[in-house]
Amino acid sequence: MVQGTMNLNTQIDKEWLQNYVDDWVAFYQKTTEEGKVASYIPVLAEANPDHLGIAIYGKNGMNITSGDTDVTFTIQSISKILTFIVACMERGVSYVLDRVDVEPTGEAFNSIMHLEMKSPNKPFNPFVNAGAITVTSLLEGKNSQEKLEPVFELLEKMIGYRPIINQQVFASEDETSARNRAIGYYLLETESLESPLDVTLETYFKQCSIETTVTDLAKIGLILANDGEDPDSEEEIIPRQIARITKAIMLTCGMYDASGKFATYVGIPAKSGVSGGIVALAPPRVRNAQFPFIEGCGIGVYGPALEERGNSVAGMKLLKHIASQWDLSIF
Amino acid sequence: MVQGTMNLNTQIDKEWLQNYVDDWVAFYQKTTEEGKVASYIPVLAEANPDHLGIAIYGKNGMNITSGDTDVTFTIQSISKILTFIVACMERGVSYVLDRVDVEPTGEAFNSIMHLEMKSPNKPFNPFVNAGAITVTSLLEGKNSQEKLEPVFELLEKMIGYRPIINQQVFASEDETSARNRAIGYYLLETESLESPLDVTLETYFKQCSIETTVTDLAKIGLILANDGEDPDSEEEIIPRQIARITKAIMLTCGMYDASGKFATYVGIPAKSGVSGGIVALAPPRVRNAQFPFIEGCGIGVYGPALEERGNSVAGMKLLKHIASQWDLSIF
Amino acid sequence: MVQGTMNLNTQIDKEWLQNYVDDWVAFYQKTTEEGKVASYIPVLAEANPDHLGIAIYGKNGMNITSGDTDVTFTIQSISKILTFIVACMERGVSYVLDRVDVEPTGEAFNSIMHLEMKSPNKPFNPFVNAGAITVTSLLEGKNSQEKLEPVFELLEKMIGYRPIINQQVFASEDETSARNRAIGYYLLETESLESPLDVTLETYFKQCSIETTVTDLAKIGLILANDGEDPDSEEEIIPRQIARITKAIMLTCGMYDASGKFATYVGIPAKSGVSGGIVALAPPRVRNAQFPFIEGCGIGVYGPALEERGNSVAGMKLLKHIASQWDLSIF
Amino acid sequence: MVQGTMNLNTQIDKEWLQNYVDDWVAFYQKTTEEGKVASYIPVLAEANPDHLGIAIYGKNGMNITSGDTDVTFTIQSISKILTFIVACMERGVSYVLDRVDVEPTGEAFNSIMHLEMKSPNKPFNPFVNAGAITVTSLLEGKNSQEKLEPVFELLEKMIGYRPIINQQVFASEDETSARNRAIGYYLLETESLESPLDVTLETYFKQCSIETTVTDLAKIGLILANDGEDPDSEEEIIPRQIARITKAIMLTCGMYDASGKFATYVGIPAKSGVSGGIVALAPPRVRNAQFPFIEGCGIGVYGPALEERGNSVAGMKLLKHIASQWDLSIF
Repeated sequence: MVQGTMNLNTQIDKEWLQNYVDDWVAFYQKTTEEGKVASYIPVLAEANPDHLGIAIYGKNGMNITSGDTDVTFTIQSISKILTFIVACMERGVSYVLDRVDVEPTGEAFNSIMHLEMKSPNKPFNPFVNAGAITVTSLLEGKNSQEKLEPVFELLEKMIGYRPIINQQVFASEDETSARNRAIGYYLLETESLESPLDVTLETYFKQCSIETTVTDLAKIGLILANDGEDPDSEEEIIPRQIARITKAIMLTCGMYDASGKFATYVGIPAKSGVSGGIVALAPPRVRNAQFPFIEGCGIGVYGPALEERGNSVAGMKLLKHIASQWDLSIF
Repeated sequence: MVQGTMNLNTQIDKEWLQNYVDDWVAFYQKTTEEGKVASYIPVLAEANPDHLGIAIYGKNGMNITSGDTDVTFTIQSISKILTFIVACMERGVSYVLDRVDVEPTGEAFNSIMHLEMKSPNKPFNPFVNAGAITVTSLLEGKNSQEKLEPVFELLEKMIGYRPIINQQVFASEDETSARNRAIGYYLLETESLESPLDVTLETYFKQCSIETTVTDLAKIGLILANDGEDPDSEEEIIPRQIARITKAIMLTCGMYDASGKFATYVGIPAKSGVSGGIVALAPPRVRNAQFPFIEGCGIGVYGPALEERGNSVAGMKLLKHIASQWDLSIF
Repeated sequence: MVQGTMNLNTQIDKEWLQNYVDDWVAFYQKTTEEGKVASYIPVLAEANPDHLGIAIYGKNGMNITSGDTDVTFTIQSISKILTFIVACMERGVSYVLDRVDVEPTGEAFNSIMHLEMKSPNKPFNPFVNAGAITVTSLLEGKNSQEKLEPVFELLEKMIGYRPIINQQVFASEDETSARNRAIGYYLLETESLESPLDVTLETYFKQCSIETTVTDLAKIGLILANDGEDPDSEEEIIPRQIARITKAIMLTCGMYDASGKFATYVGIPAKSGVSGGIVALAPPRVRNAQFPFIEGCGIGVYGPALEERGNSVAGMKLLKHIASQWDLSIF
Repeated sequence: MVQGTMNLNTQIDKEWLQNYVDDWVAFYQKTTEEGKVASYIPVLAEANPDHLGIAIYGKNGMNITSGDTDVTFTIQSISKILTFIVACMERGVSYVLDRVDVEPTGEAFNSIMHLEMKSPNKPFNPFVNAGAITVTSLLEGKNSQEKLEPVFELLEKMIGYRPIINQQVFASEDETSARNRAIGYYLLETESLESPLDVTLETYFKQCSIETTVTDLAKIGLILANDGEDPDSEEEIIPRQIARITKAIMLTCGMYDASGKFATYVGIPAKSGVSGGIVALAPPRVRNAQFPFIEGCGIGVYGPALEERGNSVAGMKLLKHIASQWDLSIF
């Protein structure tokens, strides 16, 4: 087993650790066959179900990547984090949380039922579709370009470049997403939206279609992990309060209706998307004398084969294993 | 503001800090009038709605208490933590979690609806009544005495004495708790129970009727905070894995259908009971150079005036304030 | 085809008609294999799934019986009609309907969910278990004997003898019916019951355990069909208003969550029980110049092999065929 | 009280009866103040809440009208009857009922919840919005004109002229009906629709916007009452099977979530619309020696002040009174 501490300051430490991560990825890659790629959009269905990749980014440029890290994929529901953050920055946290609750639901992400069962019709949290669409409607701007501009600016600060929208996926989402339109019209009727529905949905579909990589996700996780601050430049990219609230909602609501299980068995904030991506992170309080590099690290995972709730099946298992090996749980 | 670190090693530090806590308790005591004491049992209805008390226990015997700390009250739903822990110790974690899920519900703690809506009829988590009754049925023993003996033994190790059952409350629970019997019979029909229903419910009502104080709750929190270990004697009282899982479920499901809000605004594992008690804790990863004493501390609160979801209204606000002042959030 | 009218005044007419009914019973008897006998009580599980019998009773002692008419079975949910009638006679229609609504639910007969979803917690109708148990609690009397005495008196007037309670079934119901106890305790908590729960449930289980035959059911149907009056003696056995209301609720709610389909495809008031019995009837307005004997007739059917919703599979088909052949639909 | 029979063959009988109906309308007109006009569309909100009118049409041109009979209003949900009939005529009853069930729901007419709770996602019945929109999608034709042409032809046969679409209401429906679009998109996703959604909704909004009068509704009721046949010309306007099925569904599902109560307290098939119209009818089996004119009559009512479930408050009461006075109940 590991001797001494692994702070990745030396090349030898890093190589040694890389071997471990490679072994784990190779092991869990086999579990991809337990899942299925999302098929509601043709482009998503074309993803290679065998893929599994991971990127881990820490302070001082420390990083480990392993597996299928070159694959680009659309960010999908992970974008819900970004629009929630931007909406809170633009409108204030209390304004946003007056319009969207922060309770987990126990229902599928695309449920409409809860809107009808509860009175008043406040969406349960910003990470179910109803809540995310409401949040998107709160973004400032008259059209999707204006609304998404601060999201792209935020992303650029976090990942170092301005990502693109996958137009094919956007077009598909726009065409096929009947359930999201159903939710949108429901929210329109309950007067939950603050932008026109067509603008809101166009923005929502665009935000879901942003192209990303596991490296990007790891960098997003890194900023969130460090309470919104770039740990190296010490620049505040996201206000501290918003970053911390976001992490709390990720823990309770980030993994669809497997959120409780993920909190229990893995124990770190994470948010998954239907394309197979997961962003996870170790809050700064998570420390490990043996593996100091994990303090405040961000993790990006990609594995498009999904379990029934919509999370990457191999990605979940890989994260569980790593969290256990490196003692990442916040509890 | 505070200068230097407050490690409570010196009498002067402690007095200084005590003043703060006394001020906060005095301030939030006024918010007790926003709530109402539980009235479904006559004894509970007799509680003094103006009461508010807190105890904070850390390592090395550090403790601060303030407000109405002498009042005894029944532990109610906080007992769900204890039986869950004991069931996991007796049966193994996976055995228990095969029978009770760990997902938050978005529904009231005494909901039956979710059992019917979901298939199979696995209770959502061990802290809603349906899950807690199922967990109680898993405890070993032929009768309530046998089932609760290990619970009392666990409690004695944590709080230093063997608490008593408030017979008047037990008798009232036993007489009046129609909804819990409804849940119990529902679970009986879905074959979720592993003990006879009458034994299960008698045990459940007894566990809810254990008398406790804020000091007891703080000591329970202290052990949980430190992953099941007594921080001073270093004795393992609860296996580490079980302690950590329990804390995760407390965070996602501990405060009824306000759990998501508590995680977001306060950010620490907690479990409340309908008598107005709350046990909360700062996991060991929560560190604070300025206030080192809070590392791994346990907190007990009592304030019988409840908000509509069944949590102590002043207790929630007091905890939120303290968590913010001392930066307790795990995120 | 039939020539002239069939008023059964002549032996030749009756024989001729008997042949038809015998043919139909023989034909639909084969469909019994599409269903399964109820198994939640051992005694019910012992029923012969191949059985199918029918009795049709009209004015002037006219009757036709065919198939397995000798079999006795417990009346089960059909008793809900009787207790509803007696409760209305004892308490008045408006008193009863203030406590139980008359809306179909779209849910299974033993659903608890609707009680929780709707506010206030008024059971949907007297023929779902929650409503029937509430109605039973309204019956006058301190114990089940006193409560059921008027039910037996009513039955004796309708069927000509005092039926017995199948003690084995009663004992089984009492032992096994966890779901009904769950419903009962739920109703207790919402203060819907006007008798002690144990008395209410004992009465309910006893009323379900009354032994009956297709002939009895046909005679019950006959009285209801004729607005509560014995068509021959012209004695009023059930007040007209109560009889008519009962028939309306039978049509909208009598066949569990297949009630709408039965109303649409068969079109006559009917009530089924889980033992495989069905009581049906042709309201007096249903006239047929060709088959005058069907005016105001009562029909009893028995076929213990049930479809998934709990209705006799062959019994439903046989009734549909007869209703179509003799044009019984009230619409 | 009435002496002899009232067959309206003589002028004196008719005058005598007219007086009664005028009295009843005057009496129940006062109850309009218990309700409120629908306000979700501006045009509907302009209706005069004091209005109450009725038309009763029987055989041989017999008719009685009273109250505010000159007012035109949009047919709204009563159109669901017409499109259901036309869809059954075009596609066959079994084709339609394979796609839409005929069970009452116990939920509000615009509920989405039931679609999600039940599997598969078959709408509960053709008179809740989800079912009606599905039925409209089954109508033959590439656009709303083609789809509605047979509906207009059917209407013309029944009421003697071709009604118009209220363009102002249609435009408002089209603009404002977010909930119906939500339902529509939900149905699109579950692949319940057989026409493009925009065509389906345009058709649905147009059918709801057809202008009508109480006289028209009475004539529609008259044809339905007589099993689809014009009682005077004996022309078959609607196939008998379809007419009878329609009446059955009207009885179980026609008055929103008050359908069970209407069946119980009034006892005749009826369908209401949110503009305050109700079409009701006495099936041909309803006979009354004293009032022979009511046999197979159709009744149109208009009273825009609605009770909470969306039915005309005074219209319901007036119908209940008439049904009681003339013994119209089918039971």
